[in-house]
Order: sequence, then structure tokens, then C-alpha cells
Amino acid sequence: MARTGYILACNSGSSSLKISLYRLADSGPSLRPVLASSISNITSPPAQFIFSSEDDAVSKYSKDEEVENISDHASAFTHFLSVLENDTTVSRHDLVQICHRVVHGGAYSHPVIINDKTLHYIERLSDLAPLHNGPALAIIQTCLDTIYNANSIAFFDTMFHHTLPSHVRTYPIDQKVALERGLRKYGFHGLSYASILRSVAEFLDRPESNLNLIVLHLGSGASICAIKQGKSYDTSMGLTPLNGLPGATRSGAVDPSLIFHYTNKAGKISHDPKFASDLRVTEAETVLNSQSGWKALTGTQDFGLVSKRAKEGSKADKLAFDLLVDRILGYIGSYYVKLSGKVDAVVFSGGIGEKAVDLRRVVADNLECLSFAPVDESANANASSTADQVSEIGMKSGDGSRRLLVCKTDEQYEMAYQCIRTEEFWKEI
Amino acid sequence: MARTGYILACNSGSSSLKISLYRLADSGPSLRPVLASSISNITSPPAQFIFSSEDDAVSKYSKDEEVENISDHASAFTHFLSVLENDTTVSRHDLVQICHRVVHGGAYSHPVIINDKTLHYIERLSDLAPLHNGPALAIIQTCLDTIYNANSIAFFDTMFHHTLPSHVRTYPIDQKVALERGLRKYGFHGLSYASILRSVAEFLDRPESNLNLIVLHLGSGASICAIKQGKSYDTSMGLTPLNGLPGATRSGAVDPSLIFHYTNKAGKISHDPKFASDLRVTEAETVLNSQSGWKALTGTQDFGLVSKRAKEGSKADKLAFDLLVDRILGYIGSYYVKLSGKVDAVVFSGGIGEKAVDLRRVVADNLECLSFAPVDESANANASSTADQVSEIGMKSGDGSRRLLVCKTDEQYEMAYQCIRTEEFWKEI
Repeated sequence: MARTGYILACNSGSSSLKISLYRLADSGPSLRPVLASSISNITSPPAQFIFSSEDDAVSKYSKDEEVENISDHASAFTHFLSVLENDTTVSRHDLVQICHRVVHGGAYSHPVIINDKTLHYIERLSDLAPLHNGPALAIIQTCLDTIYNANSIAFFDTMFHHTLPSHVRTYPIDQKVALERGLRKYGFHGLSYASILRSVAEFLDRPESNLNLIVLHLGSGASICAIKQGKSYDTSMGLTPLNGLPGATRSGAVDPSLIFHYTNKAGKISHDPKFASDLRVTEAETVLNSQSGWKALTGTQDFGLVSKRAKEGSKADKLAFDLLVDRILGYIGSYYVKLSGKVDAVVFSGGIGEKAVDLRRVVADNLECLSFAPVDESANANASSTADQVSEIGMKSGDGSRRLLVCKTDEQYEMAYQCIRTEEFWKEI
Repeated sequence: MARTGYILACNSGSSSLKISLYRLADSGPSLRPVLASSISNITSPPAQFIFSSEDDAVSKYSKDEEVENISDHASAFTHFLSVLENDTTVSRHDLVQICHRVVHGGAYSHPVIINDKTLHYIERLSDLAPLHNGPALAIIQTCLDTIYNANSIAFFDTMFHHTLPSHVRTYPIDQKVALERGLRKYGFHGLSYASILRSVAEFLDRPESNLNLIVLHLGSGASICAIKQGKSYDTSMGLTPLNGLPGATRSGAVDPSLIFHYTNKAGKISHDPKFASDLRVTEAETVLNSQSGWKALTGTQDFGLVSKRAKEGSKADKLAFDLLVDRILGYIGSYYVKLSGKVDAVVFSGGIGEKAVDLRRVVADNLECLSFAPVDESANANASSTADQVSEIGMKSGDGSRRLLVCKTDEQYEMAYQCIRTEEFWKEI
């Protein structure tokens, strides 16, 4: 069967959009990266547009510029399409599939081809994650309106966690309400965890179904996942991405009653009805998702800066650094026991996981009590700049110590790869 | 110096009141238990009044009866006082100190003698823990009104945790708001942890300051504490007792945005302002403190029954049992790493910790990956009925395995004991 055409993968963040274009290989189910683009500062214009080609035959276009007319995710995507049409040999008609990362997938355990029915369902799910699903939906709508011969497929960050056991995913609340309203732990960053699991399995030359990992996806949004025999067993995010580790502007896990005392108008903690103001979910989510995290402690969202200033003696930054380490160690210990101590490796990933040399060292130093390998200082320093997908930062002692790895995650590739792995895909094209 | 008189210790729960009377020993700073009383079902009358004497010379009165005219904590305490006056040789004028367990002590790191100023401060703190401080305050007021020559002293459940390091007790939220409003982790069950620490130190014949313990206080309210060198280093409850482990009717830790989706009037998850109803702290606290926990999963608050039915095959009870085990294991693993693996013992206490043979076995079986001793089945079965304050339920292997202990906790004795340990006490009487 002839395999022709391209797969586009779109990955929307709250203020960013990453797009990768892959060409189907002439033989065998593999993919060649062709073009990559990233658009940032979408919600605080001017947006920054970056475009690069990995195949001169397709395009020699390369850009890193501010673009005035990008004001939202839809216009960012439209700008990319115009560059695709005008400055490359690929047309939108050459696309056979368009993959969209959608944060909240509710009950979906598999990717879904977008049609009226599934689109409606995903729109309803946006109520659960309004800060997160919206951007992807805007781009999906643009695809439906302007690209006719390629399927749009939604890949959900929750999919990877559909294996969470019921006693892990259940909240001990009224189960009638919980079932009616879908109130359970879903977990997020699933495409990233799937990508990391595959890369680490290749690196260790072992089947995924044989691996127990504790994976840290540390970025401005951060989570941890306990992977048991290749399947998600527990993860730190919950019903929404708010729970778990702190992030750049996100509180992570806090006492569930904290928000009421925070927003109380009395200026002091009070249950007095005269002072106890009513509180809306949007207000609570704004405070805990957008006004908290290490930005609230230090003034910056840049964890690299937090780490640097902590080292230089800044108390506020030291507090933020130590606090993140404390919460990370807590989850690692927790998942170690939940995996009955059968842990092959702790894996650092995500922007911070890949770059934060000091954070990795401090975390790893504290894991020696769980028989993890001591940190190899030079390997740890080099891991942040290596081209390798996976690198080892623990000493290779040969005594069966548990391993410390750094892994680059690639959510766009993961989506495109999941496309071509299915039989349905080959029947369709 | 002659030491005469009695110390009364009052321990209010949400619907119960336990009172113990101690006589100062003729020599040395020790205490003799004289009388004990417990009153239950206070908020769902008729209340049950139990009274027993441990000293025939003081009283031969013994009761276990329903009392019609008890309708709140103040009337429960008044009923006890009338029995004290009428059926014992002790009068209220013989009391030299009255100890009151108060749940939330805010910034207090020590017990405080109640006067107008401190009473006012404690009343203000009740806004943080309205379900918890109220009953104690009612009894304190009764004491101030009717017993003139004994100090009332407040002992706070938060005191033991004033040693929490800042990176542990801080929530990553706006610190100006946090400081103004006292929004931080406080932790609770502190009198219980102090009592257990002392008993375990005696049992192991080691100084408290030398001990690292993970202590489980498991009752209808449940929490865990990591004790590092005799001091609280972390604990599962937070700003309020809501956070952490699930309890009989309490959700414990949940995604902080869950409550908004739970109470939403739309019947489905929605951020649509038309449906998103405003939410008050009292409503949120009622749902998460009083309508959740294993009662919400199983219909009963009795964990013994949950455990029994789980064994007999009930799915809902099995879910509740497994869920509690999962959360407990998570905290133990977390605290193990936070204590750098230097853990002398895991200690089970509280009503469930003392009685739940199956729960202890399942938890302990999962701790072998942390080098805890395997469970001694017979010691585990006997621990629930022994008269010993502390008993060992792990196999004694002599290989340095970490120990598994069961410890009876005694909050009333702890308060009375803390009284007589202070020099101020001996100056006053």
C-alpha cells in the first residue's frame, strides 16, 4: 500500500501553540519530522512566531519574529497555515490527519475523531477545564472550517490515566453525586507520560509492560505519575490540573477549605455570614491556578531564576525551591510504596525536569534511602544539554541500584505516532 | 511543699465529651487517675453518660445511662459537675487546674491560661475551626462562670506542630494574604501525638529527642505525623482538620476545585454563570466534613463494620477499605523519604489504629519494601485487647528491621501531665 501525505500535530498551552509536521515514511509505520513551529505570548501580544524546517526540499523558510495580528489560538493557527501554504511545498490538502492535544477527555480512554457529536461532548468537558480545553477547541473549529480532507483527532491528556484503579481514582464523597457529575481523579500530562514511557522502554531495552517508573513532568504545570507494568497507577493531578504539585502560578494541593478563607472579604478568617462572601468557581480557579505557585512566593514564573537566586541566598526563592523539593519527595515516597518498592527508575522530564540541574541533584540526593543510585555530577550537568532522548544521571554501580534518568518528552510526536500505530489509520488513507 | 488537689481534664469532640480527674501525688510530679467519665451522642439526644471511679475512697458511683437533660456540651459538663458534687468526695473547690483540649490554637505554641484576652483570641480562632473549637469554648465558659479557684488552661491540638519547617507549613499562595489571614498548615491531633511520643520513648527506652516516628492517629478523624528527633516535621491535616486522610464523614485531601463542581446546581459540571451557584464556606465544610468519608461510600461511620463487610465481599466496603489503605500508604511513603529513611517505628493509634487488626496487617504488609518488620499475626491480633500502653506487632528479628507498634493515646492524661511538668504550676498551687 502506498503511504503518502503528512500528519500535523497541534499542542495548545494556555498562551502558546506548538505545531509539528510529520511525513509518513515511504515504507513501514514510521514518521519523519519535517517542520516545527511554536507561537508564544498568544495572550499577551505581540505573539512570538518561530518556524523552522528540517527538510530543505520542503522549505528553507526560517523565522523567529513578533507577529502583530495573532491575538488568540485560532489566529495563531491561521498564521501557521498561511506560512505552510506560501513558504513550503506542502499544502493543507496534503494533510491526512490533524492531531490535537486536548487537556480534559472525561471518560474517553482513546483518541476520538472529531465530528459533531464528539465535538459537543468535548465542549461540555471544557466546563471541567475551561482554562485548558478552550484553546484546542478553537483550533479544532478552524480545522473543521478550512481543511476538508483531513480528519481532526483529539488526543486527551487524561487517556493515559484511564487505568487508575478505582480505589485510587475515587474521592470519598457521595458517590451518587460523583457518578452523575464525573467527579473523580482523571490525571493529566498523559501524552507526555506515554511519550516518556516509550522512550525509556527503548533506552532500557525492555518492554513497556514490564516497567515500573516514577515519572516527573515538571514544567510551569507539574505532575508526577506512578507507572506500574506500563500503566498509570496513580498521578498527582486530580479532577482538574489544579491538584498535586505547585506550578509557576498554580498552588497544587492545598487544604480544600483554604480558598474560602483566602477570598473572605472580612480581612480575617471568619465564618460570620456578615463577612463570609459567596465564592464562585471561576474566582477560586483564578486565585489557585493563576495567582499562586512559585510566582506568588518569588515574583517570577521562571524556575531557573528561582533556583539561581535561592543559591545566591534569597530567602523567598529558597523557600519556593525547598517547598517544591518537599512536595516532589513526598510524591516519590508515596509512589514508591504504592509500587511496593518495585521501581526501575525515577525519570525527570518537562522543561524544568530537563533543565534544572540543582533541583535534580537535591531530589536525587534524598532518594538514596530508597536505594536509588547516587547522582553522577557530570552526567547530571550534561543531561541538560545532550541531544539524547534519554540520559542517565545516576552512577552506574552495577549493584542493582534503581536508576535516575532524564527524558525529553514530545507530545506532538506521541500523537502522530499513536495515529500511525492503529490499523484504522491505514484503512482510511 | 505540700501538694494537694485535683486536676480535671476535659476533651470535647464534635458530639462527645471525655472527662478525667487526676489527683496530684503526695510526692513527686506524678498523677493518679481517680475518676473517668464520657458522654456521647450529645448532638443526637438522648446523650449517653458513663461514669466510673478508680478509687473507692473517692467514689463508688458507677453509671452507664441515658440522660434526657443533656443537649449540648455545656449541659453535659454541668451534669458531670453535679455527679462530682453529689456522688464523690471531691468538690469543684478541690480542683486546682482544669485542662481543656481546644482544636485550633492558631499561632500559640504553648498552653494558655484562660483570661478575657486569651478567651477572645481563641474565640476568633473558632472561625478557622467552627466545627471544632465551639464545644470546648462552651465548657470553658461554664468553668469561668461556676468554678472560681481553679485556672482553666487551653491545650491546643496545633501546639505539637509549631515545629513544622517553613517550607512544609507554607502554602504556595500570595504570602501577603497568607500572613494577614494566618493561612498555613497547622496540623491537629497534637496532644495525641505528644502522648504517643512519650509512651513510645518509654517503651523503647530512648529519649524523645532521639526518635524518628511515623505515627498514625486513626479515628473517625484521622491524621498522620512525621516526627523527626522528637518534633513534628510534617502532618497530613492542614489549615483545618479537613485535609489529609479520609475520616468517617470527612473527605480528606481532594482536588481543591472539587467542591465547586460538587455543589453546582446545574446537575452537571459547568462554569456557565447561569448555573454556577455561589458557594459559602459553611456549605463547603458541611459537604466535605460531614457528608463524605467512608460513610458516603458505605453508609456507616463504623470502620469496624466497613472492614468486616469488605472481608465478606461487599464491593462498596472493599472500596472504602482499599481507599483508606491507599491514602495511608501514600503518607507513610512520603514521610519515610522526608525523614531520609531514618524511621524507628510506624505507630498505629486512635480508635481504629488500636482496634483494626486487618487494616494494620494490610498496611504493614505493604511496608516490607521499606524494611519494616513482617507482622507477627498473633501479636497483631492481641494488640487490640492488651492492657499495655504500647505493644509490638512486628516480628522481632534482631536484624534491625524498623518496628511496628500499637500505642494507646490519652489526650486527657497528656494535658494533666503537661500541667504538672511546668515550674509555674508548682509556684501557683
